[in-house]
Amino acid sequence: MMRLYHDLRAPNPRRVRMFLAEKGLTDQVELVEVSIASHANMTPAFLDKNPLGLVPVLELPDGRTLRESMAICRYLEELHPTPSLFGTDAWSRAQIEQWNRHAELEVLLPVAQVFRNSHAFWQGRLRQAPEFAEIMREHVKVRLAWLDGELATREFLGGDHFTVADITLLCGIDFGKVSAIRIGDDTPNLKRWHQAISARPSAKA
Amino acid sequence: MMRLYHDLRAPNPRRVRMFLAEKGLTDQVELVEVSIASHANMTPAFLDKNPLGLVPVLELPDGRTLRESMAICRYLEELHPTPSLFGTDAWSRAQIEQWNRHAELEVLLPVAQVFRNSHAFWQGRLRQAPEFAEIMREHVKVRLAWLDGELATREFLGGDHFTVADITLLCGIDFGKVSAIRIGDDTPNLKRWHQAISARPSAKA
Repeated sequence: MMRLYHDLRAPNPRRVRMFLAEKGLTDQVELVEVSIASHANMTPAFLDKNPLGLVPVLELPDGRTLRESMAICRYLEELHPTPSLFGTDAWSRAQIEQWNRHAELEVLLPVAQVFRNSHAFWQGRLRQAPEFAEIMREHVKVRLAWLDGELATREFLGGDHFTVADITLLCGIDFGKVSAIRIGDDTPNLKRWHQAISARPSAKA
Repeated sequence: MMRLYHDLRAPNPRRVRMFLAEKGLTDQVELVEVSIASHANMTPAFLDKNPLGLVPVLELPDGRTLRESMAICRYLEELHPTPSLFGTDAWSRAQIEQWNRHAELEVLLPVAQVFRNSHAFWQGRLRQAPEFAEIMREHVKVRLAWLDGELATREFLGGDHFTVADITLLCGIDFGKVSAIRIGDDTPNLKRWHQAISARPSAKA
Protein backbone atom coordinates (compact mmCIF):
# COMPACT_ATOMS: atom_id res chain seq x y z
CA MET A 1 0.00 0.00 0.00
CA MET A 2 1.17 3.52 -0.71
CA ARG A 3 1.72 5.88 2.22
CA LEU A 4 1.24 9.62 2.32
CA TYR A 5 3.18 11.51 4.98
CA HIS A 6 1.18 14.63 5.72
CA ASP A 7 0.15 17.26 8.26
CA LEU A 8 -3.56 17.94 8.68
CA ARG A 9 -3.10 21.70 8.95
CA ALA A 10 -0.61 22.33 6.13
CA PRO A 11 -1.95 23.38 2.72
CA ASN A 12 0.23 21.26 0.44
CA PRO A 13 -0.67 17.87 1.94
CA ARG A 14 -4.31 18.93 1.73
CA ARG A 15 -3.90 19.39 -2.02
CA VAL A 16 -2.88 15.74 -2.30
CA ARG A 17 -5.62 14.47 0.03
CA MET A 18 -8.24 16.36 -2.01
CA PHE A 19 -6.74 15.01 -5.20
CA LEU A 20 -6.91 11.44 -3.86
CA ALA A 21 -10.53 11.94 -2.79
CA GLU A 22 -11.55 13.32 -6.21
CA LYS A 23 -9.90 10.29 -7.83
CA GLY A 24 -11.66 7.89 -5.44
CA LEU A 25 -8.28 6.69 -4.19
CA THR A 26 -8.52 7.58 -0.51
CA ASP A 27 -8.79 3.93 0.51
CA GLN A 28 -5.66 3.00 -1.41
CA VAL A 29 -3.30 5.27 0.50
CA GLU A 30 -2.36 5.03 4.16
CA LEU A 31 -2.09 8.46 5.80
CA VAL A 32 0.81 8.94 8.22
CA GLU A 33 0.74 12.16 10.19
CA VAL A 34 3.95 14.15 10.52
CA SER A 35 3.13 17.02 12.85
CA ILE A 36 5.08 20.15 12.05
CA ALA A 37 3.89 21.72 15.32
CA SER A 38 5.58 18.84 17.17
CA HIS A 39 8.71 19.05 15.00
CA ALA A 40 8.06 15.51 13.70
CA ASN A 41 9.15 16.73 10.26
CA MET A 42 12.66 17.32 11.58
CA THR A 43 13.37 13.89 13.05
CA PRO A 44 16.18 11.86 11.44
CA ALA A 45 13.64 9.23 10.33
CA PHE A 46 11.59 11.76 8.41
CA LEU A 47 14.56 13.74 7.10
CA ASP A 48 15.69 10.46 5.57
CA LYS A 49 12.51 10.55 3.47
CA ASN A 50 12.75 14.27 2.76
CA PRO A 51 15.95 16.13 3.65
CA LEU A 52 14.04 19.40 3.39
CA GLY A 53 11.70 18.36 6.20
CA LEU A 54 8.63 19.15 4.10
CA VAL A 55 5.32 17.36 3.66
CA PRO A 56 3.74 15.76 1.70
CA VAL A 57 5.87 12.75 0.81
CA LEU A 58 4.44 9.76 -1.03
CA GLU A 59 6.05 6.40 -0.28
CA LEU A 60 5.52 3.53 -2.70
CA PRO A 61 5.15 -0.09 -1.51
CA ASP A 62 8.75 -0.75 -2.66
CA GLY A 63 10.07 2.09 -0.50
CA ARG A 64 10.69 4.68 -3.23
CA THR A 65 9.67 8.17 -2.17
CA LEU A 66 8.30 11.13 -4.08
CA ARG A 67 8.24 14.68 -2.75
CA GLU A 68 6.37 17.82 -3.80
CA SER A 69 2.57 17.92 -3.94
CA MET A 70 2.32 18.50 -7.68
CA ALA A 71 4.83 15.76 -8.53
CA ILE A 72 2.72 13.40 -6.41
CA CYS A 73 -0.57 14.48 -8.00
CA ARG A 74 0.82 14.18 -11.52
CA TYR A 75 2.12 10.70 -10.74
CA LEU A 76 -1.28 9.65 -9.38
CA GLU A 77 -2.96 11.14 -12.48
CA GLU A 78 -0.81 8.93 -14.68
CA LEU A 79 -1.61 5.81 -12.68
CA HIS A 80 -5.32 6.67 -12.49
CA PRO A 81 -6.25 8.91 -15.44
CA THR A 82 -9.99 9.09 -14.71
CA PRO A 83 -11.46 11.52 -13.80
CA SER A 84 -8.84 13.75 -15.35
CA LEU A 85 -7.77 16.61 -13.10
CA PHE A 86 -4.92 17.93 -15.27
CA GLY A 87 -6.75 18.08 -18.63
CA THR A 88 -7.39 15.79 -21.56
CA ASP A 89 -5.55 17.36 -24.51
CA ALA A 90 -2.47 19.54 -25.05
CA TRP A 91 -4.29 22.88 -24.93
CA SER A 92 -6.54 22.09 -21.98
CA ARG A 93 -3.54 20.71 -20.08
CA ALA A 94 -1.64 23.93 -20.83
CA GLN A 95 -4.53 26.10 -19.65
CA ILE A 96 -5.01 24.10 -16.46
CA GLU A 97 -1.29 24.27 -15.75
CA GLN A 98 -1.40 28.04 -16.26
CA TRP A 99 -4.27 28.47 -13.80
CA ASN A 100 -2.83 25.99 -11.35
CA ARG A 101 0.39 27.98 -11.32
CA HIS A 102 -1.48 31.27 -10.96
CA ALA A 103 -3.33 29.79 -7.97
CA GLU A 104 -0.06 28.60 -6.46
CA LEU A 105 2.23 31.54 -7.23
CA GLU A 106 -0.29 34.36 -6.80
CA VAL A 107 -2.36 33.02 -3.91
CA LEU A 108 -1.09 29.91 -2.08
CA LEU A 109 2.57 30.91 -1.81
CA PRO A 110 1.84 34.56 -0.88
CA VAL A 111 -0.67 33.36 1.74
CA ALA A 112 2.00 31.00 3.08
CA GLN A 113 4.45 33.91 3.24
CA VAL A 114 2.00 35.92 5.35
CA PHE A 115 1.82 32.96 7.74
CA ARG A 116 5.56 32.33 7.72
CA ASN A 117 6.49 35.95 8.32
CA SER A 118 3.87 37.05 10.83
CA HIS A 119 2.20 34.15 12.64
CA ALA A 120 3.05 33.26 16.23
CA PHE A 121 3.38 29.61 15.15
CA TRP A 122 6.86 30.33 13.76
CA GLN A 123 8.07 32.73 16.44
CA GLY A 124 11.27 31.36 17.91
CA ARG A 125 11.44 28.69 15.20
CA LEU A 126 12.60 30.85 12.33
CA ARG A 127 13.46 34.45 11.57
CA GLN A 128 10.42 36.39 10.37
CA ALA A 129 10.06 39.52 8.25
CA PRO A 130 6.72 41.09 9.26
CA GLU A 131 7.04 43.80 6.61
CA PHE A 132 7.07 41.16 3.88
CA ALA A 133 3.97 39.58 5.42
CA GLU A 134 2.20 42.93 4.99
CA ILE A 135 3.37 43.22 1.38
CA MET A 136 2.08 39.73 0.63
CA ARG A 137 -1.19 40.36 2.44
CA GLU A 138 -1.83 43.29 0.09
CA HIS A 139 -0.71 41.20 -2.91
CA VAL A 140 -3.22 38.47 -2.09
CA LYS A 141 -6.03 41.02 -1.82
CA VAL A 142 -5.27 42.37 -5.30
CA ARG A 143 -4.98 38.91 -6.80
CA LEU A 144 -8.23 37.67 -5.25
CA ALA A 145 -10.02 40.69 -6.76
CA TRP A 146 -8.54 39.73 -10.13
CA LEU A 147 -9.67 36.11 -9.77
CA ASP A 148 -13.15 37.32 -8.83
CA GLY A 149 -13.36 38.94 -12.26
CA GLU A 150 -12.13 35.75 -13.93
CA LEU A 151 -14.73 33.64 -12.16
CA ALA A 152 -17.55 35.93 -13.33
CA THR A 153 -17.65 34.06 -16.64
CA ARG A 154 -16.88 30.48 -15.74
CA GLU A 155 -17.67 27.90 -13.11
CA PHE A 156 -14.19 26.56 -12.40
CA LEU A 157 -10.76 28.18 -12.36
CA GLY A 158 -9.29 26.03 -15.13
CA GLY A 159 -12.36 26.07 -17.41
CA ASP A 160 -15.58 24.04 -17.66
CA HIS A 161 -14.55 21.27 -15.31
CA PHE A 162 -13.21 20.82 -11.82
CA THR A 163 -9.42 20.47 -11.96
CA VAL A 164 -6.28 20.58 -9.85
CA ALA A 165 -6.34 24.38 -10.25
CA ASP A 166 -9.49 24.51 -8.10
CA ILE A 167 -7.78 22.35 -5.48
CA THR A 168 -4.78 24.67 -5.32
CA LEU A 169 -6.88 27.82 -5.07
CA LEU A 170 -9.13 26.37 -2.36
CA CYS A 171 -6.18 25.19 -0.28
CA GLY A 172 -4.49 28.57 -0.74
CA ILE A 173 -7.54 30.61 0.27
CA ASP A 174 -8.44 28.37 3.21
CA PHE A 175 -4.87 28.49 4.54
CA GLY A 176 -5.34 32.25 4.78
CA LYS A 177 -7.87 31.84 7.61
CA VAL A 178 -5.17 31.49 10.29
CA SER A 179 -3.79 34.82 9.10
CA ALA A 180 -7.21 36.52 8.96
CA ILE A 181 -7.33 36.44 5.16
CA ARG A 182 -10.91 35.82 4.09
CA ILE A 183 -13.04 36.29 1.01
CA GLY A 184 -16.03 38.55 1.48
CA ASP A 185 -18.95 40.14 -0.28
CA ASP A 186 -16.65 42.38 -2.34
CA THR A 187 -15.67 39.29 -4.38
CA PRO A 188 -19.07 37.66 -5.05
CA ASN A 189 -17.94 35.38 -7.88
CA LEU A 190 -15.04 34.08 -5.87
CA LYS A 191 -17.39 33.59 -2.93
CA ARG A 192 -19.83 31.59 -5.09
CA TRP A 193 -16.91 29.50 -6.41
CA HIS A 194 -15.57 28.98 -2.87
CA GLN A 195 -18.94 27.78 -1.59
CA ALA A 196 -19.32 25.35 -4.48
CA ILE A 197 -15.82 23.87 -4.15
CA SER A 198 -16.06 23.71 -0.36
CA ALA A 199 -19.29 21.69 -0.68
CA ARG A 200 -17.49 18.88 -2.54
CA PRO A 201 -16.86 15.86 -0.29
CA SER A 202 -13.15 16.05 -1.20
CA ALA A 203 -12.84 19.41 0.58
CA LYS A 204 -13.10 17.54 3.88
CA ALA A 205 -10.30 15.10 3.03
CA MET B 1 4.30 31.72 -36.44
CA MET B 2 4.24 31.56 -32.65
CA ARG B 3 5.45 34.57 -30.70
CA LEU B 4 7.17 34.64 -27.34
CA TYR B 5 6.91 37.86 -25.35
CA HIS B 6 9.98 37.99 -23.14
CA ASP B 7 12.57 40.11 -21.35
CA LEU B 8 16.22 39.28 -21.93
CA ARG B 9 17.18 39.79 -18.29
CA ALA B 10 14.32 38.02 -16.51
CA PRO B 11 14.80 34.39 -15.43
CA ASN B 12 11.43 32.92 -16.43
CA PRO B 13 11.54 33.91 -20.12
CA ARG B 14 15.07 32.51 -20.21
CA ARG B 15 13.71 29.14 -19.10
CA VAL B 16 11.48 29.11 -22.18
CA ARG B 17 14.20 30.32 -24.54
CA MET B 18 16.55 27.57 -23.29
CA PHE B 19 13.77 25.04 -23.63
CA LEU B 20 13.12 26.12 -27.24
CA ALA B 21 16.84 25.92 -28.03
CA GLU B 22 17.15 22.40 -26.55
CA LYS B 23 14.16 21.35 -28.67
CA GLY B 24 15.65 22.90 -31.80
CA LEU B 25 12.63 25.19 -32.08
CA THR B 26 14.28 28.59 -31.85
CA ASP B 27 13.61 29.35 -35.53
CA GLN B 28 9.91 28.57 -35.15
CA VAL B 29 9.18 31.24 -32.56
CA GLU B 30 9.40 34.99 -33.03
CA LEU B 31 10.81 36.75 -29.97
CA VAL B 32 9.15 40.01 -28.96
CA GLU B 33 10.92 41.95 -26.24
CA VAL B 34 8.84 43.41 -23.42
CA SER B 35 11.27 45.44 -21.33
CA ILE B 36 10.34 45.44 -17.66
CA ALA B 37 12.94 48.17 -17.02
CA SER B 38 11.03 50.39 -19.48
CA HIS B 39 7.65 49.42 -18.00
CA ALA B 40 6.63 47.86 -21.34
CA ASN B 41 5.01 45.04 -19.36
CA MET B 42 2.50 47.49 -17.90
CA THR B 43 1.16 48.99 -21.15
CA PRO B 44 -2.53 48.36 -21.95
CA ALA B 45 -1.52 46.37 -25.05
CA PHE B 46 0.58 43.96 -23.01
CA LEU B 47 -1.79 43.79 -20.05
CA ASP B 48 -4.37 42.62 -22.57
CA LYS B 49 -2.15 39.57 -23.15
CA ASN B 50 -1.34 39.12 -19.49
CA PRO B 51 -3.28 41.10 -16.87
CA LEU B 52 -0.54 40.32 -14.34
CA GLY B 53 2.05 42.13 -16.47
CA LEU B 54 4.39 39.14 -16.35
CA VAL B 55 6.58 37.55 -18.99
CA PRO B 56 6.85 35.11 -20.69
CA VAL B 57 3.66 34.90 -22.74
CA LEU B 58 3.34 32.57 -25.73
CA GLU B 59 1.01 33.71 -28.50
CA LEU B 60 -0.24 31.16 -31.03
CA PRO B 61 -0.77 32.03 -34.71
CA ASP B 62 -4.54 32.17 -34.06
CA GLY B 63 -4.10 34.73 -31.28
CA ARG B 64 -4.62 32.47 -28.26
CA THR B 65 -2.19 33.23 -25.45
CA LEU B 66 -0.56 31.07 -22.82
CA ARG B 67 1.11 32.43 -19.68
CA GLU B 68 3.50 30.89 -17.15
CA SER B 69 6.87 29.48 -18.21
CA MET B 70 6.14 25.90 -17.19
CA ALA B 71 2.71 25.86 -18.87
CA ILE B 72 4.43 27.05 -22.06
CA CYS B 73 7.23 24.48 -21.83
CA ARG B 74 4.81 21.63 -21.16
CA TYR B 75 2.72 22.69 -24.15
CA LEU B 76 5.80 22.78 -26.37
CA GLU B 77 6.84 19.35 -25.04
CA GLU B 78 3.50 17.93 -26.15
CA LEU B 79 3.77 19.43 -29.62
CA HIS B 80 7.43 18.38 -29.97
CA PRO B 81 8.08 15.37 -27.72
CA THR B 82 11.70 14.79 -28.80
CA PRO B 83 14.11 15.24 -27.12
CA SER B 84 12.05 14.73 -23.99
CA LEU B 85 12.79 17.31 -21.29
CA PHE B 86 10.02 16.30 -18.85
CA GLY B 87 10.67 12.52 -18.79
CA THR B 88 9.55 9.46 -20.71
CA ASP B 89 7.53 7.38 -18.24
CA ALA B 90 5.37 7.99 -15.18
CA TRP B 91 8.15 7.60 -12.60
CA SER B 92 10.80 9.59 -14.46
CA ARG B 93 8.27 12.33 -15.12
CA ALA B 94 7.43 12.39 -11.41
CA GLN B 95 11.10 12.58 -10.43
CA ILE B 96 11.83 15.35 -12.92
CA GLU B 97 8.81 17.29 -11.71
CA GLN B 98 10.03 16.88 -8.13
CA TRP B 99 13.48 18.24 -8.97
CA ASN B 100 12.13 20.96 -11.21
CA ARG B 101 9.96 22.15 -8.35
CA HIS B 102 12.83 21.96 -5.89
CA ALA B 103 14.90 24.10 -8.29
CA GLU B 104 12.06 26.58 -8.61
CA LEU B 105 10.78 26.75 -5.03
CA GLU B 106 14.11 26.37 -3.22
CA VAL B 107 16.39 28.35 -5.55
CA LEU B 108 14.77 30.39 -8.33
CA LEU B 109 11.94 31.92 -6.30
CA PRO B 110 14.11 32.69 -3.23
CA VAL B 111 16.75 34.24 -5.52
CA ALA B 112 13.99 36.32 -7.12
CA GLN B 113 12.85 37.41 -3.63
CA VAL B 114 16.36 38.63 -2.81
CA PHE B 115 16.25 40.71 -5.99
CA ARG B 116 12.71 41.95 -5.43
CA ASN B 117 13.30 42.96 -1.84
CA SER B 118 16.78 44.47 -1.96
CA HIS B 119 17.83 45.50 -5.48
CA ALA B 120 17.89 49.14 -6.58
CA PHE B 121 16.03 48.11 -9.75
CA TRP B 122 12.77 48.02 -7.81
CA GLN B 123 13.31 51.02 -5.56
CA GLY B 124 10.45 53.44 -6.08
CA ARG B 125 8.57 50.86 -8.15
CA LEU B 126 7.38 48.64 -5.34
CA ARG B 127 7.60 48.33 -1.58
CA GLN B 128 10.58 46.23 -0.52
CA ALA B 129 11.31 44.21 2.63
CA PRO B 130 15.12 44.09 2.94
CA GLU B 131 14.93 41.79 5.96
CA PHE B 132 13.17 39.16 3.89
CA ALA B 133 15.87 39.49 1.24
CA GLU B 134 18.44 38.60 3.89
CA ILE B 135 16.40 35.61 5.06
CA MET B 136 16.11 34.34 1.49
CA ARG B 137 19.81 34.95 0.81
CA GLU B 138 20.64 32.63 3.70
CA HIS B 139 18.01 30.12 2.51
CA VAL B 140 19.56 29.95 -0.94
CA LYS B 141 23.01 29.34 0.55
CA VAL B 142 21.73 26.36 2.56
CA ARG B 143 19.83 24.93 -0.40
CA LEU B 144 22.77 25.24 -2.78
CA ALA B 145 24.92 23.32 -0.28
CA TRP B 146 22.23 20.62 -0.24
CA LEU B 147 22.13 20.45 -4.03
CA ASP B 148 25.91 20.21 -4.10
CA GLY B 149 25.59 16.95 -2.17
CA GLU B 150 22.90 15.69 -4.53
CA LEU B 151 25.04 16.41 -7.58
CA ALA B 152 27.97 14.43 -6.13
CA THR B 153 26.41 11.23 -7.44
CA ARG B 154 24.78 12.21 -10.70
CA GLU B 155 25.42 14.35 -13.74
CA PHE B 156 22.08 16.14 -14.03
CA LEU B 157 19.60 17.39 -11.46
CA GLY B 158 16.71 15.21 -12.62
CA GLY B 159 18.75 12.03 -13.21
CA ASP B 160 20.85 10.64 -16.07
CA HIS B 161 19.71 13.10 -18.70
CA PHE B 162 19.45 16.81 -19.21
CA THR B 163 15.91 17.96 -18.35
CA VAL B 164 13.81 21.01 -17.58
CA ALA B 165 15.03 20.75 -13.97
CA ASP B 166 18.54 21.71 -15.13
CA ILE B 167 17.11 24.67 -17.01
CA THR B 168 15.27 25.93 -13.93
CA LEU B 169 18.28 25.54 -11.65
CA LEU B 170 20.62 27.27 -14.11
CA CYS B 171 18.25 30.20 -14.60
CA GLY B 172 17.76 30.47 -10.84
CA ILE B 173 21.47 30.44 -10.02
CA ASP B 174 22.41 32.83 -12.82
CA PHE B 175 19.69 35.28 -11.80
CA GLY B 176 21.48 35.48 -8.45
CA LYS B 177 24.45 37.27 -10.02
CA VAL B 178 22.76 40.69 -9.91
CA SER B 179 22.29 40.14 -6.18
CA ALA B 180 25.88 38.92 -5.62
CA ILE B 181 24.76 35.31 -5.17
CA ARG B 182 27.40 33.06 -6.69
CA ILE B 183 28.50 29.45 -6.47
CA GLY B 184 32.06 28.96 -5.33
CA ASP B 185 34.67 26.37 -4.48
CA ASP B 186 32.75 25.27 -1.37
CA THR B 187 30.20 23.61 -3.67
CA PRO B 188 32.46 21.76 -6.17
CA ASN B 189 29.80 19.41 -7.54
CA LEU B 190 27.40 22.24 -8.17
CA LYS B 191 30.23 24.19 -9.79
CA ARG B 192 31.06 21.26 -12.10
CA TRP B 193 27.35 20.94 -12.98
CA HIS B 194 27.06 24.69 -13.55
CA GLN B 195 30.03 24.73 -15.92
CA ALA B 196 28.68 21.79 -17.90
CA ILE B 197 25.17 23.24 -18.26
CA SER B 198 26.50 26.73 -19.03
CA ALA B 199 28.59 25.24 -21.87
CA ARG B 200 25.47 24.03 -23.70
CA PRO B 201 24.57 26.24 -26.66
CA SER B 202 21.06 26.66 -25.21
CA ALA B 203 22.48 28.54 -22.22
CA LYS B 204 23.09 31.51 -24.53
CA ALA B 205 19.52 31.56 -25.85
